Amino acid sequence: MKRNLALGVDIGGTNSVFGLCDEYGKLYFEESVSTTDYSTPEELVDKIYERIKSVGHLPNVEGIGIGAPNGNFYSGTIEFAPNLKWKGIIPLARLFEYKFKVKTILTNDANAAAIGEMIYGAGRDLKDFVTITLGTGLGSGVISGGNLIYGHDGFAGEYGHIRVVPDGRLCGCGRKGCLETYVSATGVVRSIHELDSKHSETSELINLKNPEASQVFQLAEDGDEFAVEIIEYTAKVLGNSLADFTCFSSSKAYILFGGIAQNGPSFAKKVKGYMEDALLNIYKDKIEIRISELHDKNAAVLGASSLVWNELS
Amino acid sequence: MKRNLALGVDIGGTNSVFGLCDEYGKLYFEESVSTTDYSTPEELVDKIYERIKSVGHLPNVEGIGIGAPNGNFYSGTIEFAPNLKWKGIIPLARLFEYKFKVKTILTNDANAAAIGEMIYGAGRDLKDFVTITLGTGLGSGVISGGNLIYGHDGFAGEYGHIRVVPDGRLCGCGRKGCLETYVSATGVVRSIHELDSKHSETSELINLKNPEASQVFQLAEDGDEFAVEIIEYTAKVLGNSLADFTCFSSSKAYILFGGIAQNGPSFAKKVKGYMEDALLNIYKDKIEIRISELHDKNAAVLGASSLVWNELS
Repeated sequence: MKRNLALGVDIGGTNSVFGLCDEYGKLYFEESVSTTDYSTPEELVDKIYERIKSVGHLPNVEGIGIGAPNGNFYSGTIEFAPNLKWKGIIPLARLFEYKFKVKTILTNDANAAAIGEMIYGAGRDLKDFVTITLGTGLGSGVISGGNLIYGHDGFAGEYGHIRVVPDGRLCGCGRKGCLETYVSATGVVRSIHELDSKHSETSELINLKNPEASQVFQLAEDGDEFAVEIIEYTAKVLGNSLADFTCFSSSKAYILFGGIAQNGPSFAKKVKGYMEDALLNIYKDKIEIRISELHDKNAAVLGASSLVWNELS
Repeated sequence: MKRNLALGVDIGGTNSVFGLCDEYGKLYFEESVSTTDYSTPEELVDKIYERIKSVGHLPNVEGIGIGAPNGNFYSGTIEFAPNLKWKGIIPLARLFEYKFKVKTILTNDANAAAIGEMIYGAGRDLKDFVTITLGTGLGSGVISGGNLIYGHDGFAGEYGHIRVVPDGRLCGCGRKGCLETYVSATGVVRSIHELDSKHSETSELINLKNPEASQVFQLAEDGDEFAVEIIEYTAKVLGNSLADFTCFSSSKAYILFGGIAQNGPSFAKKVKGYMEDALLNIYKDKIEIRISELHDKNAAVLGASSLVWNELS
């Protein structure tokens, strides 16, 4: 039997997704589990193994690609991820290799998304772009001259932890004012209680028990003034940050990926507006804000699986 | 006659330096002129041509490397440099090629410094580092995986214009709070009048007519409390910024280059301290602050000339 599928595994703070796809991005299987249900990573590896076995594809797995928060490409480990309950250094690539007996590549989930975007998505025509993933946190993957920037230790591209507000919101990392405390699903929800506004008291948001970022976007569309203000503020913080990040990589595009970005071109357009206002002269009118093209195509699994094809090519 | 020398030209906001050196970094000639004396770039090219001709080395010039503020590697132009009086887009590489009839490579002055550091200096053992040049402004050159990061348009690595203080000091670029308005020779001098301190009135700094950054460092060594405070503040702003920049590139080292950095290991040590305090957990105790090793070796000309050898290799 031919080994022609990549197992892509995306570890998220809330959910983890795994699936099988071929080198053209065609998906053969996909499943999602709640990450927090697994008190150890070994339990999750066992679960994924059993599922792949049960659908009969175990012999087809050519390699495994893993996208994980604080994932280290060089060592194949997850290191001190603030959004996971697995603490310390987790040798996840090694655990998968031990169980599946195939080559496993692990990186930051956002780096996986960037490679996925370059291979199958909105970055196919680009050599210099940054993927910004907006989920529970904010991740980023920087492609420069067609290569992913890993840094000396594999931890480059942690834009979510650049501090953008002095003495700002407390972050899971223990520092204050990190970008992801403002710009992420969690950040949008925090704004309901932490953003000063004269409209907050009359907003429906205040009455929601466990509000979600998607509800803020929905209410903004319905004309709720406070919700509109939160979206505007989120776009402003991101646009301003991207203006500054451009000084580092001078990328041709930022590709927005994940829940918030899916709220269509209007959020991206707002981000672009704030970014242009704040850009250094030499960068103005050159940089695009694009929406991920992997959204409708099982992005997380594709991103993770693309690591296998990128490694083989 | 053998063409075995590179002409290195470093364009600075105040002075420009040019010189000849071989591929081992041995210097054969060097001269400095006041950039502001030349109302057009053509006049400066003519002047340099005449000087190289007069010392008899014109036939030996293998190629020309230029480091310039806002220098664009891809187009060979200087574009909208706020610290130069030559405005707009200056095709400087082309002007040199037209006059000297040899290949000319131009980049950001800080990028040139980074390549110089990698070829002859403190980055010889590194593949992932950032050069921070502290002169009239603040420049940076990012080496990742052994390659310079140029970005899609050649303008990557403009760390000096990352805004670090919201609504902070007005910058030459028209924006507010840029790093170089705090951390640069100019920034240190601005702190004399713009940093709030109870020690300012009793400081000797207040009586200086045209104070220079070197005097602030000297007075700090002599125990002037306000001068000490300014140096501490400068190191703090830089250390905090480097902590955040690390989230982009995860570099192994920052190499400080230029006037302020020459004030020895004590400034670098302060910067390192503030950086460590502010780093994200995963980066702590991994990153060095080094001092340029090109300082005593005609750094600017070496940096610029290294572009020629880097291109040929």
